[in-house]
Amino acid sequence: MRYLSAGESHGPSLLGIIEGLPAGLIIKEDYLNQQLARRQGGYGRGGRMSIEKDRLKILSGVRFGKTTGSPLSLMIENRDWLNWQKVMSTDPLDETGERKVTSPRPGHADLAGGIKYLQRDLRNVLERASARETAVRVAVGSIASLLLAHFKIVSAGFVVAVGDVQASSRGLELNAGVIKEKTADSLFYCLDKEAEQLMRERVDQARERGDTLGGVFEVIVEGLPPGIGSHVHWDRRLDGRLAGALMSIPGIKGVAIGLGFEAAGKPGSLVHDPIVLDENKKIRRTSNNAGGLEGGITNGEVIVLRAAMKPIPTLTKALSSIDLATGKIRDAVVERSDVCAVPAASVVGEAVVNWEIGKAFMEKFSGDSMTEVEMAWQSYMNLVKDYLGEIKI
Amino acid sequence: MRYLSAGESHGPSLLGIIEGLPAGLIIKEDYLNQQLARRQGGYGRGGRMSIEKDRLKILSGVRFGKTTGSPLSLMIENRDWLNWQKVMSTDPLDETGERKVTSPRPGHADLAGGIKYLQRDLRNVLERASARETAVRVAVGSIASLLLAHFKIVSAGFVVAVGDVQASSRGLELNAGVIKEKTADSLFYCLDKEAEQLMRERVDQARERGDTLGGVFEVIVEGLPPGIGSHVHWDRRLDGRLAGALMSIPGIKGVAIGLGFEAAGKPGSLVHDPIVLDENKKIRRTSNNAGGLEGGITNGEVIVLRAAMKPIPTLTKALSSIDLATGKIRDAVVERSDVCAVPAASVVGEAVVNWEIGKAFMEKFSGDSMTEVEMAWQSYMNLVKDYLGEIKI
Amino acid sequence: MRYLSAGESHGPSLLGIIEGLPAGLIIKEDYLNQQLARRQGGYGRGGRMSIEKDRLKILSGVRFGKTTGSPLSLMIENRDWLNWQKVMSTDPLDETGERKVTSPRPGHADLAGGIKYLQRDLRNVLERASARETAVRVAVGSIASLLLAHFKIVSAGFVVAVGDVQASSRGLELNAGVIKEKTADSLFYCLDKEAEQLMRERVDQARERGDTLGGVFEVIVEGLPPGIGSHVHWDRRLDGRLAGALMSIPGIKGVAIGLGFEAAGKPGSLVHDPIVLDENKKIRRTSNNAGGLEGGITNGEVIVLRAAMKPIPTLTKALSSIDLATGKIRDAVVERSDVCAVPAASVVGEAVVNWEIGKAFMEKFSGDSMTEVEMAWQSYMNLVKDYLGEIKI
Amino acid sequence: MRYLSAGESHGPSLLGIIEGLPAGLIIKEDYLNQQLARRQGGYGRGGRMSIEKDRLKILSGVRFGKTTGSPLSLMIENRDWLNWQKVMSTDPLDETGERKVTSPRPGHADLAGGIKYLQRDLRNVLERASARETAVRVAVGSIASLLLAHFKIVSAGFVVAVGDVQASSRGLELNAGVIKEKTADSLFYCLDKEAEQLMRERVDQARERGDTLGGVFEVIVEGLPPGIGSHVHWDRRLDGRLAGALMSIPGIKGVAIGLGFEAAGKPGSLVHDPIVLDENKKIRRTSNNAGGLEGGITNGEVIVLRAAMKPIPTLTKALSSIDLATGKIRDAVVERSDVCAVPAASVVGEAVVNWEIGKAFMEKFSGDSMTEVEMAWQSYMNLVKDYLGEIKI
Repeated sequence: MRYLSAGESHGPSLLGIIEGLPAGLIIKEDYLNQQLARRQGGYGRGGRMSIEKDRLKILSGVRFGKTTGSPLSLMIENRDWLNWQKVMSTDPLDETGERKVTSPRPGHADLAGGIKYLQRDLRNVLERASARETAVRVAVGSIASLLLAHFKIVSAGFVVAVGDVQASSRGLELNAGVIKEKTADSLFYCLDKEAEQLMRERVDQARERGDTLGGVFEVIVEGLPPGIGSHVHWDRRLDGRLAGALMSIPGIKGVAIGLGFEAAGKPGSLVHDPIVLDENKKIRRTSNNAGGLEGGITNGEVIVLRAAMKPIPTLTKALSSIDLATGKIRDAVVERSDVCAVPAASVVGEAVVNWEIGKAFMEKFSGDSMTEVEMAWQSYMNLVKDYLGEIKI
Repeated sequence: MRYLSAGESHGPSLLGIIEGLPAGLIIKEDYLNQQLARRQGGYGRGGRMSIEKDRLKILSGVRFGKTTGSPLSLMIENRDWLNWQKVMSTDPLDETGERKVTSPRPGHADLAGGIKYLQRDLRNVLERASARETAVRVAVGSIASLLLAHFKIVSAGFVVAVGDVQASSRGLELNAGVIKEKTADSLFYCLDKEAEQLMRERVDQARERGDTLGGVFEVIVEGLPPGIGSHVHWDRRLDGRLAGALMSIPGIKGVAIGLGFEAAGKPGSLVHDPIVLDENKKIRRTSNNAGGLEGGITNGEVIVLRAAMKPIPTLTKALSSIDLATGKIRDAVVERSDVCAVPAASVVGEAVVNWEIGKAFMEKFSGDSMTEVEMAWQSYMNLVKDYLGEIKI
Repeated sequence: MRYLSAGESHGPSLLGIIEGLPAGLIIKEDYLNQQLARRQGGYGRGGRMSIEKDRLKILSGVRFGKTTGSPLSLMIENRDWLNWQKVMSTDPLDETGERKVTSPRPGHADLAGGIKYLQRDLRNVLERASARETAVRVAVGSIASLLLAHFKIVSAGFVVAVGDVQASSRGLELNAGVIKEKTADSLFYCLDKEAEQLMRERVDQARERGDTLGGVFEVIVEGLPPGIGSHVHWDRRLDGRLAGALMSIPGIKGVAIGLGFEAAGKPGSLVHDPIVLDENKKIRRTSNNAGGLEGGITNGEVIVLRAAMKPIPTLTKALSSIDLATGKIRDAVVERSDVCAVPAASVVGEAVVNWEIGKAFMEKFSGDSMTEVEMAWQSYMNLVKDYLGEIKI
Repeated sequence: MRYLSAGESHGPSLLGIIEGLPAGLIIKEDYLNQQLARRQGGYGRGGRMSIEKDRLKILSGVRFGKTTGSPLSLMIENRDWLNWQKVMSTDPLDETGERKVTSPRPGHADLAGGIKYLQRDLRNVLERASARETAVRVAVGSIASLLLAHFKIVSAGFVVAVGDVQASSRGLELNAGVIKEKTADSLFYCLDKEAEQLMRERVDQARERGDTLGGVFEVIVEGLPPGIGSHVHWDRRLDGRLAGALMSIPGIKGVAIGLGFEAAGKPGSLVHDPIVLDENKKIRRTSNNAGGLEGGITNGEVIVLRAAMKPIPTLTKALSSIDLATGKIRDAVVERSDVCAVPAASVVGEAVVNWEIGKAFMEKFSGDSMTEVEMAWQSYMNLVKDYLGEIKI
């Protein structure tokens, strides 16, 4: 499985092509649109979110509700494009310099991207660097989650901190279904109602100050069998692949698995998860500090990932910057933006984890039809049972 | 540039093949061997380190001290193999069950890898999952650093925490050369002499208890021009690639860029690095919280990365585990190991960062000979100068 | 550079996403549409070609006529879709079995693809296996040719045989510009007017018989400097890459470089192209039997490639087949088709060669903007000049 | 599955690392060494073949005769290196200019490679461009064939032409086992004893003239189920992949599948292979002109591939060339070489086909252990049986 995405924030549409999906996967468009809506939700969003009500159009690879094995292409139209057609035109004759950007925002790709691609109009950078691109990542990841759900592999993303407000529980004792339910009701996709209240206050205060806030979200994945990922070559380790996927989400500056940075401060005897057998000879761990990954491989426990998002780099109270056109100091451009997008980021995080795990899953249980994938998976489960003998997982 | 590595911990040798190096790169074997020695050093290592004095043999791709453009292959012999020839034999007749492992160590690949590959003898997993494989990663990364050094791009890894002992300074005010010098003198590759003393005590205490310790290291990279990595597609973002590379080092559970998790707790106005001009119209940042990466692209500031290593999973005071051969509870096997390998991990971290940055550098400044790469780099530097006009970087 | 394509023959549209184009490339939509029209032309086409007048829509990656460095996405709408909306619907409720195909055509992907993806309706295979997909390949390859044209690298495809009619000259003495001009006037994109007349007769005869015809086309590429491709690793050889690209065009069963199969029958003294110097000390070859590639690398001579296309597998006079629904012998389904598509294949061949060479060119002269690519190319040309000293290329 | 190869013709050794082999594959070293010996055999070889008796050393990835899932690394030592240690030294101090090459051989990588990598000593090119590298490709491909043989998939390469001598039969009526037996007895790995006699005469004549000869070989693959490769994306088509692999063998200038170029000259009614059912309702084709591949997918028939090899470019009666050191016309360097290496090429061809098919096989029937691969394969075979109902394959 592989995919490419395309599209600018104010262009006609965002596009994705997924190649390598097995045939026979049921594509629930409603579910995919719900995920797109989740990405657009959460407290602290700006005006754009009320313009766009993202809806997916599937242009190929699906017939009568099921994948055919051919590349699945999807499009999400930008409604706002109607107001930007001239500015974003592909026609050379339309160039007027309207909405040209020459003053890069600190924290964004503007300056580095402008230099890299030698673009005088930084709009050519920021239109693609915009987090709007993550809509495709949510669509693509949600399609992967349809595949995983077939095997009862379910992930759930939720917010554990906004600014300096930490939620009291991480929800590890809850299962993914319950988490999904609870976050659906929450303005911050958060499991701690009291913290949520404080988060709201902080976001309101930040908005008033023309400031922005970041936070931390967590993604858990339930139902994975042991054996996804591999220790045999560094680039096949699932821990590295998941960290890479999460860190590539705009704004993410830290990624942790299981105990994460806390693991560095404790002795081995308190970090590693002892292996015991319960009364039915089922393997159990008395803790899950590894977050479900040992040696870069799933160990059968719940995957626990955490990512830190920096505050949105577009501040209403603009930061100091320069003007590349004049060579002078000037405030950074202010492009319409959110005050806090951590809830949205938790949805994107869930999606990229679904994609990466779906990909690793298909590498192990490859097949050209869902039936074939299912049988490969079932065979492995039987082999593992035989391998373990009296012991169960 | 790409590479594959091979080799088991107690097999005859570790091997690597690097494909895609430009011709004309001067290969300093002494330097490479020094890096291998650094990886073997640091306080807290076990007995293996005194057996092996890793030395690199270059088997192809280099003639008269310079690369030819052909694949560079390298070998690091395992001296300990002499004692393991029968146990690690490729000959079917040699199988005796000697040193067979059936009791997986929590925290290691043993259990998940055994299940995945259906191996009755977990040695077939642990021999490859062993951190000994990182010797190749150090060799490969150090070769990339020879390439980068040609462009005055220098990285330095150092330890900032061991167990609960935090070093007082992160050394960001120091340059890479000074850091290299100072860590060379330190038992823990650490810049804080007082912390080092405490670290030593903690390691001694842990060893006495049969326990192990983790820690945190940092890698900085100086001298990168703006424009390495890209925002245009998620898998080309340098932040994601670096995080993936670091998280794929055995034992790493957390990765951070710049402020990392701290960035999540502060408002945008205190996180983003304002762009100012100094008296010579040179772009400066009044802070480097982004750690040199904005929008997944280098912005010209120092790259700052941090990784958290969990304690070594092989404890002398073994953790509870099971015996896959008997189906009963049993203590985990005890394979000779270190008490603390955070200093070594800092060397591996530096190496994988060098490799990933070298790769991204070559993607931008491709060329089949060093002269060609140099001219591509010089052209870009001139273009950037033109682009910025009066402003300088 | 990489791309993915998507789309079915009777779906709403064909799509492509190209990732990795440098910024600043001028995209001439007229030129691209001309290439699409060329693919639809040639004598011997069926009814579909009069329904579709392919036009490209660029959806991202281009602003004011130039690439921005962001992924370029393109769409070609299928006008015929209006008549197929129900049949090709993504909605599960629309499934009626209309136009279901259960009888596979020999020579097509139908049977093997149906088995592979376990599809009861072979339409789910043939819609994607249809040569209509090559419209995207032409679009993508033509974009690469815009890049190459900037460096005066020009390719030209033309037909050298249709059925048993061989054109008398291969046009190697002509340059690409002249070939393009002459083929534009030809019903068969052929340089031999007399042969063309015979080809037309053969196609008319075949149509009357309900039969189809194949043929041979040639693609030449002028202007490549020596040094594209590499001998150092098998998968970097340009000969292998070009052969793979050509053989992956539907219907191609043979690929040749330079003398091709004839080279096998002659002694080395008559095959290898002697290197001589002309009066200006310019390197010349007294022949070009190697077709411009030695050791998998361009040698500065014209690239000469040839591909054999089998006859179209959909015959009006259907071949014997089976019915997978009934398990009985039955004639193959007849899907609207062409009698001869060799002229179109020559356009597709030219396009895939442009893509593959464009990719190899960008691997050597990478850069994020056209200016940067140009400087990398110029630097190399200067280095080669220095390298050769008095000798010139 | 992926691999990298390394090593020069007169360096210490050739190396390969294969990553992605399933665990539990039995590695028969004797078989692998036989294949290496076959590559060294055949009538018409030069002196080098009597110096080297290639033997494989496996350095990792295999324990007690079976793969473990870890990267398999292999080494083939160059015995001739003993005579070349100074010339091929990695030590800067050893550079003396001994055996420096400045006069490129037409037909070889020498000139293009020298320019590309800016090498004054063309030995830095020819040492890697040497066909000696194909020893690794034979080793790697033979390991893939061990995997395939487990599923009764067997390939056989044999020579069908040397110079202007064509063998009378192509052996398609023979199975792979018989072909292997018959070619083992043949000086030219050819099935036609009379042609063999003529081939020998032609080689003797060529040697006397200081000339060289090429030829054509064929590779067939038996036992593949329908469904390997895919029509859904151009780069997944097995026809393109196989053509790319064959064309990347040094000296190959033409590749054909099934009827190949002949298919271009015949009408569709005589080219496509009708699908019929025999008395047991088993699918049969009344011909195999497609060579087992339709739509880029295996269709269950025997795969038939053919490749044309040009004559060896090193002639004792050297061709005209230039001297890059003096800028003057001069005869090409004469490096020890063969008169005819088509038999060897047929072994390499068989090997690269095995690798590529093994790779495609593993993409469909992925698994981390042979047992798992076997079960995936078995599941698919059962699904295909169900899919076809009364019809059988």
